Amino acid sequence: MTIDSRWIDEAFFQAEKSWSEGGIPIGAVLVNCVGEIVSCGHNERVQSGDPTAHAEVVCFRNAGRRRDWKELTIVSTLSPCIMCTGTTLLFGLKRVIVGENKNFLGAEALMCSNGVHVTVLQDERCIELMQRFLVEKQDLWSEDIGQ
Amino acid sequence: MTIDSRWIDEAFFQAEKSWSEGGIPIGAVLVNCVGEIVSCGHNERVQSGDPTAHAEVVCFRNAGRRRDWKELTIVSTLSPCIMCTGTTLLFGLKRVIVGENKNFLGAEALMCSNGVHVTVLQDERCIELMQRFLVEKQDLWSEDIGQ
Repeated sequence: MTIDSRWIDEAFFQAEKSWSEGGIPIGAVLVNCVGEIVSCGHNERVQSGDPTAHAEVVCFRNAGRRRDWKELTIVSTLSPCIMCTGTTLLFGLKRVIVGENKNFLGAEALMCSNGVHVTVLQDERCIELMQRFLVEKQDLWSEDIGQ
Repeated sequence: MTIDSRWIDEAFFQAEKSWSEGGIPIGAVLVNCVGEIVSCGHNERVQSGDPTAHAEVVCFRNAGRRRDWKELTIVSTLSPCIMCTGTTLLFGLKRVIVGENKNFLGAEALMCSNGVHVTVLQDERCIELMQRFLVEKQDLWSEDIGQ
């Protein structure tokens, strides 16, 4: 299945939504085997006070109880951290699409070594929004990645 | 800091609570540097429909936004899966106490290779309750670990 630009568009929309709410600007979507978006989400640390509410985790949460995880693709505006990577591996996804990894490189190597196919888009919108966040709210970012 | 048996007692109480609610019988607590339990939780997949609600994740969630993660110890009735391991690594915890790993061996090796100190208690209560769950609700367990 070729990459549909609407997936990263929606993930980026989620990131912008979070940013406009004063939150961390990272968004994600889960896509099924025919290319439909089955769930979306953004980082909710600021909005809900939940330290595990990274965009990808929120996306898995919003997808609910299902048994077709292995057919799904996760699309995130930023390279997934070790928690989100672990979640992806737990559910056995085979494919991950990353908006950018210039501002943060997560655990892509662990995904690859477990047979997950990772594609990095280096999407300019994702890079710029994350860069702005890192300049304006460095401390919030440090908190989000456990530093 | 030596291990206080009240930590696994409370984690087991959480597991029993979930089991009595028809849920998955896995519980966890987070302990601070002076041995006080700062949060607790149990698997909530059945209760809330959230596929990411493993006991350890719920525990991190319930601990809220804080900056002392590296001083905390997570105590779980069962060996943490790759998602819960990733969460533990993200927040930089240095110590994990596992009730048992006979019924399920999670990603302990990944924790150890990242410098986390893992202690396995092989607590008989934890082993028996998990065994009973595996016999009575095998399919629910498969769902919980993404199979």
